Amino acid sequence: MLAGWVHRRRDHGGLIFVDLRDREGIVQIVFDPKRSGDAFHSAETLRHEDVVQIEGTVALRPPEMVNPNLATGEVEVYATRLTVLNRAKTPPFVIRDEINVGEELRLRYRYLDLRRPRMQRNLHIRHRTIKFIRDWLDARGFWEIETPILIKSTPEGARDFLVPSRLQPGKFYALPQSPQQLKQLLMVSGIDRYFQIARCFRDEDLRGDRQPEFTQLDLEMAFVEAEDVMALNEALMTELVQTVTPHKRIKQTPFPRLTYAEAMERYGSDKPDLRFGMELIDVAAVWAETDFRAFKGVIESGGRVKAIVAPGLATYSRKQISELEDLAKGWGAKGLAWVKVEEGGTLSGGVARFLENVRDAFLQTTGAQPGDLVLMVADTADVVHEVLGRLRLELGDRLGLRDKDELAFVWIVDFPLVEWNEDEGRWDAVHHPFTSPKPEDIPLLDTDPGKVRAQAYDLAGNGWELAGGSIRIHRRDVQAKMFQLLNIDEATAQERFGHMLEAFEYGAPPHGGIAWGIDRVVMVLADEPNIREVIAFPKTASGADLMTGAPSEVDPKQLEELHLKIVLPEREPASSAE
Amino acid sequence: MLAGWVHRRRDHGGLIFVDLRDREGIVQIVFDPKRSGDAFHSAETLRHEDVVQIEGTVALRPPEMVNPNLATGEVEVYATRLTVLNRAKTPPFVIRDEINVGEELRLRYRYLDLRRPRMQRNLHIRHRTIKFIRDWLDARGFWEIETPILIKSTPEGARDFLVPSRLQPGKFYALPQSPQQLKQLLMVSGIDRYFQIARCFRDEDLRGDRQPEFTQLDLEMAFVEAEDVMALNEALMTELVQTVTPHKRIKQTPFPRLTYAEAMERYGSDKPDLRFGMELIDVAAVWAETDFRAFKGVIESGGRVKAIVAPGLATYSRKQISELEDLAKGWGAKGLAWVKVEEGGTLSGGVARFLENVRDAFLQTTGAQPGDLVLMVADTADVVHEVLGRLRLELGDRLGLRDKDELAFVWIVDFPLVEWNEDEGRWDAVHHPFTSPKPEDIPLLDTDPGKVRAQAYDLAGNGWELAGGSIRIHRRDVQAKMFQLLNIDEATAQERFGHMLEAFEYGAPPHGGIAWGIDRVVMVLADEPNIREVIAFPKTASGADLMTGAPSEVDPKQLEELHLKIVLPEREPASSAE
Repeated sequence: MLAGWVHRRRDHGGLIFVDLRDREGIVQIVFDPKRSGDAFHSAETLRHEDVVQIEGTVALRPPEMVNPNLATGEVEVYATRLTVLNRAKTPPFVIRDEINVGEELRLRYRYLDLRRPRMQRNLHIRHRTIKFIRDWLDARGFWEIETPILIKSTPEGARDFLVPSRLQPGKFYALPQSPQQLKQLLMVSGIDRYFQIARCFRDEDLRGDRQPEFTQLDLEMAFVEAEDVMALNEALMTELVQTVTPHKRIKQTPFPRLTYAEAMERYGSDKPDLRFGMELIDVAAVWAETDFRAFKGVIESGGRVKAIVAPGLATYSRKQISELEDLAKGWGAKGLAWVKVEEGGTLSGGVARFLENVRDAFLQTTGAQPGDLVLMVADTADVVHEVLGRLRLELGDRLGLRDKDELAFVWIVDFPLVEWNEDEGRWDAVHHPFTSPKPEDIPLLDTDPGKVRAQAYDLAGNGWELAGGSIRIHRRDVQAKMFQLLNIDEATAQERFGHMLEAFEYGAPPHGGIAWGIDRVVMVLADEPNIREVIAFPKTASGADLMTGAPSEVDPKQLEELHLKIVLPEREPASSAE
Repeated sequence: MLAGWVHRRRDHGGLIFVDLRDREGIVQIVFDPKRSGDAFHSAETLRHEDVVQIEGTVALRPPEMVNPNLATGEVEVYATRLTVLNRAKTPPFVIRDEINVGEELRLRYRYLDLRRPRMQRNLHIRHRTIKFIRDWLDARGFWEIETPILIKSTPEGARDFLVPSRLQPGKFYALPQSPQQLKQLLMVSGIDRYFQIARCFRDEDLRGDRQPEFTQLDLEMAFVEAEDVMALNEALMTELVQTVTPHKRIKQTPFPRLTYAEAMERYGSDKPDLRFGMELIDVAAVWAETDFRAFKGVIESGGRVKAIVAPGLATYSRKQISELEDLAKGWGAKGLAWVKVEEGGTLSGGVARFLENVRDAFLQTTGAQPGDLVLMVADTADVVHEVLGRLRLELGDRLGLRDKDELAFVWIVDFPLVEWNEDEGRWDAVHHPFTSPKPEDIPLLDTDPGKVRAQAYDLAGNGWELAGGSIRIHRRDVQAKMFQLLNIDEATAQERFGHMLEAFEYGAPPHGGIAWGIDRVVMVLADEPNIREVIAFPKTASGADLMTGAPSEVDPKQLEELHLKIVLPEREPASSAE
């Protein structure tokens, strides 16, 4: 007895063939007027996506009819009985992996989109990934503890989603951006090894791979140092990949480590894709010896000039190079300098003429070979790294250097603790205000905060930030100093974080942890280009659920009970904001 | 090397003894001036709850010093080194199981409260319960799929928590009361076997064991009937108890079943505690033969007269009986009639004189024995069942009939599909509008809706509703008829449930499921009297988190961005609402 959806029906040679589909795959059902009786006539009415139950006999297919592309391709089922459980209208798109419809339509009919084998595979990979993580951590003494979703609003980093309280008019809960504070309080509680697959929320303007709600593996340990947390997570990630996606190769174990500074210098990114080289090369010293005013001016005003070498791309036309230049400008560059290396090592095109006198030094510094295209940006360090970092990924894609069956993990360490916020005229925490400075850098907090390194570590993989964590401050005096540095005054610190400061006085153990972006990890394991493909019911860029129509207007009575009134912006009516 | 909290320090015979505590328990550390060196002097400064790291040598205790009450009671650790990792102020209450402080103080310092061994045990039972459920369902082909927390508001049942959308001014998300609709849509997606440990939210006025957010095991299966869902859940619950709390006895397997009507008749509750008898007995026929006007009046106007027999409680004084009467009145009874059975079977006290002529019939009907106290209520069925049902539990407690090591599960079936809402003048869904009627009762939808039985089942245990579920409607025509019955017009149904109605047209399989109240299940397994004891960070009756101060006032800028204005009620200032 089988039940499922009619994937396809073919009438052939007096027989009716139905591909019956369920979560596990497809099997062929045969209706034969001689053997199937009444079921044959019912089968004549079957259409795509009808829901049916079939009784029949499994038989080997004749050798010439075996379908090697199908897991069940060697058998077929001769139906003796057919029950139509539910009829289906013609769906707005066919249920198969290769469809050519807009994402809007897919999201509008997500329940049909999720019938596609690829989406079912993604949901299954997600289930297995999270299950594996839970089993692995449980076996190592971690307890999963649920922390509340309705918490206190303590603005830091992104914007909070707010939830009005009806029982306490005028007051609000916030949805957690992460369980950060609560997991630290669990360490103060002596829980020792905690984790949670936690839902987190950020009310940000949504970009490509952001969602208003996302899932974290949140993990915290007491009595540990950074090395302990990193070793544990490295082992977990390695075994996860080996178990859930055994066809993928991990490029290097133990995972290599880069300092934040080195990652930026060499790859222009704090989440570099290490599947390929094409590193950023400092060519300022070479340009300093030339007469090229534009670059020399940048160097003299403290800027940087860096290059990447695109192997073999000297074949690029002016038009192709111009496209790259447009990309670079879109990412913030003022221009993109380039030069081709010809056979014999001569330079041609672009800025070649300025390099005549320094050709050998240029070739030696860049390592460029005949046939290569060298691309350069001169600007502030931030712009140079941003633009060349992105260009590197773009060229890596074009050159097929980003093998999807390879996973290149890398730990990024020695992040700065704080960064100067020019707009607000104060220091901001690079991670969050609970991150511990390196003990040896604590004196610098008073003298040169920008030089203080955090006890923080990020795990990047294939160009994505997959996880990030730190050792936390567990001493009240250090935490108070940190708040001071971030220009959070005593009263504000008390109001927002009083419970944390107080908890630190009652015997807080040293502790640290990490959070994984589960959506991104699953996306990478499932070879998907964005996280919406690995989330059952994602939202659009405007935060809309196209299937149910959330968010929506609500009954005025509901707002009245919450003591709230809507004050719509005058120039921007609600309907245009969608 | 050990790390943990100083649980206790005793100086004795020139030695210092420290009980070091962590999540796993307590171990005794000995500081000996001869062997511990500098550590001895550091140890002199140790106070309760200081966080320390100790190096030392494990040794057997002298036989006379063995502490059989401690898992580590046969050993002690001679310290050679002591590092004070963090000092602690004197905590507001001592960290041990038996404390005599108000719950408010415990919640205010929850991070200290959670250090108590009992709370750590509760969190561990919770972790193991949920882990077991996940493993068990995973092994049976269930996929855990995360459904969104920011969903559409579709008011049904309890009040929704609302979340204002910033990107779509004037619109709101709701927090889910359960993933009901989404899990049904997953069935339409062909997921077949879904579950989720899901956070759910209800903005209700909080009572004893209610929390604004709570955790459900949410489960759904396609192509099943009620018996399949019940059998699976019965097996899961049985193995869960055997694994997590093997010292508990399950009273009866397979779990007995009662119809809703029978449960109400015999126990006055749809979640009866079957650990003991003391059933409700109909004594109307007996009273009809008497001259007692009050009871006869009730019977004539369609009311009920029922009794429970409290064994051995003929010893109760007038005062004690009067206390019971006060309880009954508090629960809604107009009075509580009683009579004692004396040696030889004579009746005395209370309403005994009215029963003189029908004594034998009375004794036979109630089964009361000499020494028993018979308690009776005459009123509408609702009041009689409510009052006697609660009185039964109260007397069960007093008589020690509710053994905490016994678990009596019972399935309640054949619930009515709808009940008449007198206030609103319409039918309400007893469970929710997606519950399927029994096929044989579908014709009654048009003629006698109150008689229609739902394909629903609740699992009760020890007097708690632990789980509830149903087979769902999967046909659009039946769903439309149901909305009609509930007085939800076409337009409203479209607006609220359009996505469900539409999904039902594209091949929805027959499906059904269940939801467990995880907090209650863990509470019962952990022998706790309320769910706050098994939730890491619960809220008070006014929805407050006393530790962090949520909900709280927020920055006016935050409200401005949400296009909201607070309109406080005039007579009830915000501060008094706490």
